[in-house]
Amino acid sequence: MASHYIGIDLGGTNFRCGVIDENHQIVSKYETPTNAQEGSSAVIDKLVDGIERVCLTAEKLADDIKGVGIGFPGPLNQERGLVFNAPNMPGWENVPLADIIRERTGIRTFIENDANCAGWGEFVHGAGRGVQNMMMVTLGTGIGGAIIIGGKLHIGRDGAAGELGHVPIIDGGRRCGCGASGCVEAYASASSVVRRFRDMLDQGWKSSLSDRYDTLTSYDIFTAGAAGDPVALHIVEETGHYLGVMASAVAELLNPERCVVAGGMIQAGEILFGAIRRTCLNRNHHPGRTMEIVPAELGQNAGLIGAADTARVRLEAAP
Amino acid sequence: MASHYIGIDLGGTNFRCGVIDENHQIVSKYETPTNAQEGSSAVIDKLVDGIERVCLTAEKLADDIKGVGIGFPGPLNQERGLVFNAPNMPGWENVPLADIIRERTGIRTFIENDANCAGWGEFVHGAGRGVQNMMMVTLGTGIGGAIIIGGKLHIGRDGAAGELGHVPIIDGGRRCGCGASGCVEAYASASSVVRRFRDMLDQGWKSSLSDRYDTLTSYDIFTAGAAGDPVALHIVEETGHYLGVMASAVAELLNPERCVVAGGMIQAGEILFGAIRRTCLNRNHHPGRTMEIVPAELGQNAGLIGAADTARVRLEAAP
Repeated sequence: MASHYIGIDLGGTNFRCGVIDENHQIVSKYETPTNAQEGSSAVIDKLVDGIERVCLTAEKLADDIKGVGIGFPGPLNQERGLVFNAPNMPGWENVPLADIIRERTGIRTFIENDANCAGWGEFVHGAGRGVQNMMMVTLGTGIGGAIIIGGKLHIGRDGAAGELGHVPIIDGGRRCGCGASGCVEAYASASSVVRRFRDMLDQGWKSSLSDRYDTLTSYDIFTAGAAGDPVALHIVEETGHYLGVMASAVAELLNPERCVVAGGMIQAGEILFGAIRRTCLNRNHHPGRTMEIVPAELGQNAGLIGAADTARVRLEAAP
Repeated sequence: MASHYIGIDLGGTNFRCGVIDENHQIVSKYETPTNAQEGSSAVIDKLVDGIERVCLTAEKLADDIKGVGIGFPGPLNQERGLVFNAPNMPGWENVPLADIIRERTGIRTFIENDANCAGWGEFVHGAGRGVQNMMMVTLGTGIGGAIIIGGKLHIGRDGAAGELGHVPIIDGGRRCGCGASGCVEAYASASSVVRRFRDMLDQGWKSSLSDRYDTLTSYDIFTAGAAGDPVALHIVEETGHYLGVMASAVAELLNPERCVVAGGMIQAGEILFGAIRRTCLNRNHHPGRTMEIVPAELGQNAGLIGAADTARVRLEAAP
């Protein structure tokens, strides 16, 4: 009896695919570079190939799979299974991705925003278990997010809710890649962290990383911060502060039980989380209001597990 | 057969009470100064008296009334019917308001945040009809709000959701009454509008209102702005901009269909709404994302109608 789902986490760099069982366990998994520059047709071939591979490894036929869920990195319409475009991948204008995958595999297919999939994965199987209202913020090259309300993924009118990266924190502040000013992404994404660090070096601050100006990564900065480099530590704590401002906006609006923070930067641990919590607590004025701020637990598997489970939810709602 | 509810809108200055029928029509209404300084016992006596008065006018017995809903201006716990305190009224620390009113009237009583009641009133009977996801922002001495998601009032874990006034828009900016910096309330509430206008006069700007520095109200400023006073017009448009930044945060997070704006300032009309919409649209980067921004329709009756209907919702959920 079909009780398994396939989850796909399609990123601009890598694509992951897995068969997931009813307990959110990964039965088989396949990962390969996306080669996004080859265009959507080539990427879709790769998705179909990945689905066949993970079925084979898991010893499943298409009939054993109830549904496919795809986490896609761009704006889309969940109901129609339609991708509008992909900011970091060429050739994805108005692609009816769900229908195409269903036709080629015979399995019912659903699409969802990739950050929503990761948030849903943490909610059902990771750091969000046991709550009803949760926000997830994913720190990467950009900042993504997901909002879960009353135990349900909240996608909003146009399927575009959960864009935590574009919550404004300083109107008139740094220019964001989206064109607006002062989005939290313009301060706290991996690339913004590097930019802010370089700004400090430009202003004459000396750091153990000064001689690596051109090749700096956010990982270097967080590592140096943990090792006590004062400039790096300042940037890490300030990054936590900016994230805390954004998290407090969500807390004021939604008063959720938990905020889950994901992405490579969370390895910084307490120096980052302490700063996020301090700012959030300091801005909090409502007696008894509380929001736990915790690291994600599933790492890169969150997207896979979540994508598969969003397919389950969609199928159960419309069998 | 009981099919009517009583709605109460308890404010620091005035208190309104009404019998509301199943079509959200006000059958009878009573309004009187709250005299909040007399303390909670005196105010509660007044609530009980008001309930008796509106029942009498509507020719209803307590048995004809299914429930009482009270919109209260302060933090509270809806489940327990417990008021934590009231920022602008003395003597409301930990008052079990719902139980007290039920004991004294024999009618089941529920309490809800006043801004949530007004938002719910607009949702069921005003400018929010026909949508599933809505935000309401109420501009007064402070800024209140309500969030409706999937056709339900979202109150969050601690009943404290919808605090739109304390969404940060400029981290490090103006100090808010709540203690945090840069909340939208510190820029766009009625008192903040007056403060920002005075700041411009202090900086040497000349306005038709210059000689009324000490007695200025936000109404004066909005009126002068509509009449073409350049300083007042600047303040009105800037106020719209700040509200647009906050509204865009909600749009990014929740992607609702509609934003309803309430409060005396909305009489400014297009000069205010145009500015809100422009900023919101300019910050918007998601293709196809839309949010209507419209004035509230029910005026001061929104709180009454909404309070009564939140009692209906609560009773139907737990008969």
